[in-house]
Amino acid sequence: MRTLITNIGELTTNDASGEDLCGTRHDAAVVIDGGRISWLGSSDAARSPEVHDAADDVIDADGRAMIPGFVDSHSHLVFAGDRAAEFEARMAGERYAAGGIRSTVAATRAASEDELRARLRRFVDELLAQGTTTVEIKSGYGLDVETEERLVRLAAEVTSEVTFLGAHVVPAEYAGRDEEYVELVTGRMLERCAPHAKWIDVFCESGAFTVAQSRRVLEAGIAQGLSPRVHASQLGPGDGVQLAVDLGAASIDHGTYLTDADVAALAGSDTVLTLLPGVEFSTRQPYPDARRLIDAGVTVALACDTNPGSSFTSSMPFCIAIAVRDMGMTPAEAVWAATAGGARALRRDDIGVIRPGARADLVLLDAPTRIHLAYRPGVPLVSRVWKDGIAVR
Amino acid sequence: MRTLITNIGELTTNDASGEDLCGTRHDAAVVIDGGRISWLGSSDAARSPEVHDAADDVIDADGRAMIPGFVDSHSHLVFAGDRAAEFEARMAGERYAAGGIRSTVAATRAASEDELRARLRRFVDELLAQGTTTVEIKSGYGLDVETEERLVRLAAEVTSEVTFLGAHVVPAEYAGRDEEYVELVTGRMLERCAPHAKWIDVFCESGAFTVAQSRRVLEAGIAQGLSPRVHASQLGPGDGVQLAVDLGAASIDHGTYLTDADVAALAGSDTVLTLLPGVEFSTRQPYPDARRLIDAGVTVALACDTNPGSSFTSSMPFCIAIAVRDMGMTPAEAVWAATAGGARALRRDDIGVIRPGARADLVLLDAPTRIHLAYRPGVPLVSRVWKDGIAVR
Repeated sequence: MRTLITNIGELTTNDASGEDLCGTRHDAAVVIDGGRISWLGSSDAARSPEVHDAADDVIDADGRAMIPGFVDSHSHLVFAGDRAAEFEARMAGERYAAGGIRSTVAATRAASEDELRARLRRFVDELLAQGTTTVEIKSGYGLDVETEERLVRLAAEVTSEVTFLGAHVVPAEYAGRDEEYVELVTGRMLERCAPHAKWIDVFCESGAFTVAQSRRVLEAGIAQGLSPRVHASQLGPGDGVQLAVDLGAASIDHGTYLTDADVAALAGSDTVLTLLPGVEFSTRQPYPDARRLIDAGVTVALACDTNPGSSFTSSMPFCIAIAVRDMGMTPAEAVWAATAGGARALRRDDIGVIRPGARADLVLLDAPTRIHLAYRPGVPLVSRVWKDGIAVR
Repeated sequence: MRTLITNIGELTTNDASGEDLCGTRHDAAVVIDGGRISWLGSSDAARSPEVHDAADDVIDADGRAMIPGFVDSHSHLVFAGDRAAEFEARMAGERYAAGGIRSTVAATRAASEDELRARLRRFVDELLAQGTTTVEIKSGYGLDVETEERLVRLAAEVTSEVTFLGAHVVPAEYAGRDEEYVELVTGRMLERCAPHAKWIDVFCESGAFTVAQSRRVLEAGIAQGLSPRVHASQLGPGDGVQLAVDLGAASIDHGTYLTDADVAALAGSDTVLTLLPGVEFSTRQPYPDARRLIDAGVTVALACDTNPGSSFTSSMPFCIAIAVRDMGMTPAEAVWAATAGGARALRRDDIGVIRPGARADLVLLDAPTRIHLAYRPGVPLVSRVWKDGIAVR
């Protein structure tokens, strides 16, 4: 089954060989064959019999913009419960505290596997409808061996990007015994979870885990074949960034409070900085200055961090709009960060890009340019979505 | 045709007789009959034969939240062209200037009536899909007699809330002859436009019209049977608010820069203050402090101001989210302002409210509470929409 999509007014390829960051082409066309992109060229070239007549289906994009499917490299989609009241209280002046995670842990432990699966699948559909074709999903609302294993196993049913985050926070029953909890995470819990996961993650922050504990968690995961990523510097500055760089983590996530030394370390590394504007929105913290980071040479990704506590958005367009308005990113940088940047944060080169051979994960916007994602905030502009070459919307 | 919607987890009625601002009911049910709401009660009461068996159709809301359709009391939906490049330049540091309106005027004058109508209808559909069941539409991108008449006439095809805004800005061909332009607006242009309009509006701001000119425009409109509303204090403080209150305007819109005297005048008046968070978002101006205004006794409405220059969102949920995060409104206040507040700004009591006799303009959210509109920013939570009792989504 070959599908030709032609008359694409603005095509964001993210092909690094072009002059501009987004490898932009105008009046372009692509061919999807099976789950991959098999051809890319101008609308003119797509009129040739070799391209046009070989297609089983031709879609006229009518001058609209196309971008790669969003790659959301940070989410917590397997959970039960809802924290709307906590959000409302926060908007009335209460501060966000990492300990709120525990209320979701209680609800998640109490939920059945079927309930968790049904919710997870609804979220995945919700993301797809908004153009997110790849999502990383973390455990971390179980915090006991059985529930954490259930969460990574469920996540693995819907994505290959599964992260074991047993070290999300110390659960209530281990209060004052955090070293014992780290033993559990790096021991039996890791052993049960690692077979379902690709990534090991830790929340390295005051109120969660110390740098020494975080290092133990990450190194234990690496020893089990997982690759590291780190939550750090969300609530204040800390040494998590340096730890992430030392261990060659694919990404450090949050980075709301970074020192100049952190920025320099990131700029000189292969570690991506994944910014999560939904968190600053929803916790009313200051937005990070992405301009400073990009200008210093840091590779920036954008992700939603969908979770019921600190960021319940699942809208990559919303994150792009905030990144442009409040974080100093250009529309091109923000769209790149939400696609190619997310792919880098997952160490993938087959997604976040539109080129022959890449996965056919595509989003057609109901707008002539990608700028409209920030220019028209909140408006559902994602009109068609293909994942692995299949039209899912 | 009677439709019963039952098992509504949280119903925002905006019925002022209740204890809370939103007249909230839990586990509620409503009956739509023709274009009106004919009954409202508990899900329990809806099980009685008189209610349940009399319904032709029964919809189970499954615990989800329902709110009145959004009343967007400020938009500029009849125009041609696009100013994405101007938006991008502004995000890179350029300032917003009212003069940018002229580029849309050029595109609008050049467009055919069919083109304008087709675009307008697409926008109305876009709004409906996002839960906006009433929209006010202004002219103001014609600025000559013929085009302004065309714009109000087209607007009247899709809404009864039509505003003549010939005094949007002085067009290029009248540069330096603004008094002459005011003559035209209050003379021939008004005469041609008034039959299609309900409202007269003026942009009372440095770079647009002076207070004296604004008064002449409004008084001329009033003399033709139109009711006044005013754009003011968007780019800096001015005397527009006082003018609006003096003339008993239904609303002053923008109000980004208000003096204490402005606030006191509004609090003691029947004039609603319509805040437009999309404008501050898109022009990167400071968000107004709605908390101060509400605490002072001002009636606040929220609207999108959909237009290609200063605010191209058409998402009332986006405006609600920003109002909660950045303007100090509670979720209940923001939802009230986007429904009942908009209705007050249009001097309507049949919309923005869910009570027997009101229009059956209803939005069912894919969420258990209205808080989720801010708690889940950017996520398209509007799952079903009824306008005049007809399911349009």
